Amino acid sequence: MKAIQHILGEVDELVIVVGSAQFNYSEKDPFTAGERVLMLRAALKEAGVDLGRVIIIPLNNFENNHSWVKYLESYVPPFDVAYTGNQFVAMLLRNAGYRVVQQPLFSRDIYVSTLVRKKMMDGDETWRELVPPSVAKILDELKSVERLRVISAGEADPLKW
Amino acid sequence: MKAIQHILGEVDELVIVVGSAQFNYSEKDPFTAGERVLMLRAALKEAGVDLGRVIIIPLNNFENNHSWVKYLESYVPPFDVAYTGNQFVAMLLRNAGYRVVQQPLFSRDIYVSTLVRKKMMDGDETWRELVPPSVAKILDELKSVERLRVISAGEADPLKW
Amino acid sequence: MKAIQHILGEVDELVIVVGSAQFNYSEKDPFTAGERVLMLRAALKEAGVDLGRVIIIPLNNFENNHSWVKYLESYVPPFDVAYTGNQFVAMLLRNAGYRVVQQPLFSRDIYVSTLVRKKMMDGDETWRELVPPSVAKILDELKSVERLRVISAGEADPLKW
Amino acid sequence: MKAIQHILGEVDELVIVVGSAQFNYSEKDPFTAGERVLMLRAALKEAGVDLGRVIIIPLNNFENNHSWVKYLESYVPPFDVAYTGNQFVAMLLRNAGYRVVQQPLFSRDIYVSTLVRKKMMDGDETWRELVPPSVAKILDELKSVERLRVISAGEADPLKW
Amino acid sequence: MKAIQHILGEVDELVIVVGSAQFNYSEKDPFTAGERVLMLRAALKEAGVDLGRVIIIPLNNFENNHSWVKYLESYVPPFDVAYTGNQFVAMLLRNAGYRVVQQPLFSRDIYVSTLVRKKMMDGDETWRELVPPSVAKILDELKSVERLRVISAGEADPLKW
Amino acid sequence: MKAIQHILGEVDELVIVVGSAQFNYSEKDPFTAGERVLMLRAALKEAGVDLGRVIIIPLNNFENNHSWVKYLESYVPPFDVAYTGNQFVAMLLRNAGYRVVQQPLFSRDIYVSTLVRKKMMDGDETWRELVPPSVAKILDELKSVERLRVISAGEADPLKW
Repeated sequence: MKAIQHILGEVDELVIVVGSAQFNYSEKDPFTAGERVLMLRAALKEAGVDLGRVIIIPLNNFENNHSWVKYLESYVPPFDVAYTGNQFVAMLLRNAGYRVVQQPLFSRDIYVSTLVRKKMMDGDETWRELVPPSVAKILDELKSVERLRVISAGEADPLKW
Repeated sequence: MKAIQHILGEVDELVIVVGSAQFNYSEKDPFTAGERVLMLRAALKEAGVDLGRVIIIPLNNFENNHSWVKYLESYVPPFDVAYTGNQFVAMLLRNAGYRVVQQPLFSRDIYVSTLVRKKMMDGDETWRELVPPSVAKILDELKSVERLRVISAGEADPLKW
Repeated sequence: MKAIQHILGEVDELVIVVGSAQFNYSEKDPFTAGERVLMLRAALKEAGVDLGRVIIIPLNNFENNHSWVKYLESYVPPFDVAYTGNQFVAMLLRNAGYRVVQQPLFSRDIYVSTLVRKKMMDGDETWRELVPPSVAKILDELKSVERLRVISAGEADPLKW
Repeated sequence: MKAIQHILGEVDELVIVVGSAQFNYSEKDPFTAGERVLMLRAALKEAGVDLGRVIIIPLNNFENNHSWVKYLESYVPPFDVAYTGNQFVAMLLRNAGYRVVQQPLFSRDIYVSTLVRKKMMDGDETWRELVPPSVAKILDELKSVERLRVISAGEADPLKW
Repeated sequence: MKAIQHILGEVDELVIVVGSAQFNYSEKDPFTAGERVLMLRAALKEAGVDLGRVIIIPLNNFENNHSWVKYLESYVPPFDVAYTGNQFVAMLLRNAGYRVVQQPLFSRDIYVSTLVRKKMMDGDETWRELVPPSVAKILDELKSVERLRVISAGEADPLKW
Repeated sequence: MKAIQHILGEVDELVIVVGSAQFNYSEKDPFTAGERVLMLRAALKEAGVDLGRVIIIPLNNFENNHSWVKYLESYVPPFDVAYTGNQFVAMLLRNAGYRVVQQPLFSRDIYVSTLVRKKMMDGDETWRELVPPSVAKILDELKSVERLRVISAGEADPLKW
């Protein structure tokens, strides 16, 4: 939220790309792209962000890295500057002529998705302090703890069944 | 715009699905999904719609119709009621348990995308009266008339080259 | 049924390939592959065929015709002879070294799937005389007439929505 | 075989899904889906099972877990109850409204496919005691030991060549 | 051949893209990409062209037109100028910054692939005058007349079987 | 180069398959298929090889191993004998009836791609001694060291973004 709010202080409109959109109910991507959009919007609303300035686009992965920026372009409105913390994505965007800004990170060692998921599965209720209240509420409604536990039991890999 | 505004009078938030998102620069889908998002947002803004209540999601086609609603669900936030003018989509959604409302149509015989495109290619400038001014402006910036003409010359089918 | 029974008079076991298995709820393939398996088995049972001698395999289409036989082979048990009425498939199988037998046809001008579907949509109840009673029963349970009508209204093409 | 026979004591007809059907000649899936169907049928026949009550359906993997049950449904006849030993698959099926029964396991620590394959590659002929005689015969005809050895040499991953 | 020789008079090395490479044994693409490479090379050799200056690359189709040039780029060595007779492809290449030259055409009304195929199927041996002798020889070895006849019988569309 | 030259001493024409052609800018496949074609040709030219006798074909991976040889066949001209150092590929080719020759290896412990890449990333300029001068020149032009470093930072996996 802080990173998004920071960026919104620098730009008019922000496109947030929800990647790996084709995956869900997996260890890396336990939630559907739609559920991720839901949580993002809830948290932004809660933080008082003007949702009208935020465009959230689910994007499937695409294996041809050389063509990835063009692929990205075809799914999002035109953009002037890109924020990312991923140096590889930054290189691809720069090669394509975009201005790239290092995405600001806040307390990156505390807000770690792997850690949040681990706490949830371990029954450690302090995970609730690591996500916005509105997101915690949605995670409860989605019965996320149960979902994560079943997924992490290691049988969710479609290659196995 | 009128249909969207009408629906926004009945619901809190509206998810607009931009279909055939994987296609672009083709006769049926001359614009990228991202360009379509851009035009939709511009027109909504111009019409005074609160963009914060509208969620625009690009969606690729999916051949397994029996599974299509579940596929759709995985890309959009949960929804209660679906508006569509397509009776086939309505049937799939009803089979999946959704309440479906006939999407209201306004002057459907005038606002026909095929007609707009034909006028554009024929050099008939009255196409500008059939789209919101903000969209006409974007279409000019995208050099749409030239794009449509080249596409309609019949060589844009990737199966042909 | 007659064709299958005829072939079962010549072979020990018969593999029936249900093609275009990835398609359903479309004009050409209104039923899911699973529903097609259901109807085939019901009719075979009704005709007194030993189901233990019949292996029904759904098969997705595959665009690389040169490789199609090898693709087919990977989904079905090994076979000695192939029955088909399609001369193209016959050519591919012969090129791959298989013995191919012309699939026997019975009253081919009467038992035409296009005709059956047309009658169903036109409300002409004589379609029931063109399918085995067990299949007619399943078609009723699947509300096929309604499904066919909605599909044939021309909006079922995923490329259109 | 025992599990299948046990289930056939509780149901009229059983659909056996042969998963990962698109893979073959790989470490995890050394046999084609068709070869797996062949072996299953041989063993069932040998065990005196009425093959007419068993429906074997090869099924390709599908990455969208949220939609997986609908995807499955489109390839198999309608079913009332699902047997599985995979808790993740059980969760997906329960979420879709199906009654799920824990698949019974017999001597699960002895009949382990990984172990059978290891013995085969190590030249330990006792693998023959772990599969039905009819399956051992097919495995010999398929020159499985040689196939497994070449595959396990670690060069079978298509991503590597 | 004349077009290729003309272009080779203007450039050092020429990349020839064999499109629709994933299709074969179909009405539009009766030959595999490999067979097309074979015929091209035979004709070039026969015409005395230095094969070392020609790079023939099979390329599958790609549906995302906006990204197509980047997709193309990832399969061919870097190039400075593109020759094409397809105005759509020309537009995509120009949008990507390439210099595009209209591909020279020689007796375009005589050397028409559709016509050659029609003659072959009609048993009109004058098709041999429309292709280089080396290509006619390969077409004979491939039993092309028989292949074309079976394909044109209208059963080759994988969507039909 | 030595292996290719050796094989060219035994055959008239050589088809070199550039595998995993759909991948690029990844740890395993840092270069596009086109860049790999470029480097191969440069090195062959430098070594005095007649490029007219070499056919370089990029080939995407294909998951169905049982059908892989037929898939390969559809992209390359007909061939009589196959050279490979991969025993799995050799088995598939032999099963399909091809004569397979063990690809000769020269100083295989020195010319190791993993090692070359490691040296490049470590700033160890001796990598230049492990590739032909013409290839070193291209690698410099492609800014390969920078590309490899960014990729190896571990963020290039499309599954991660």
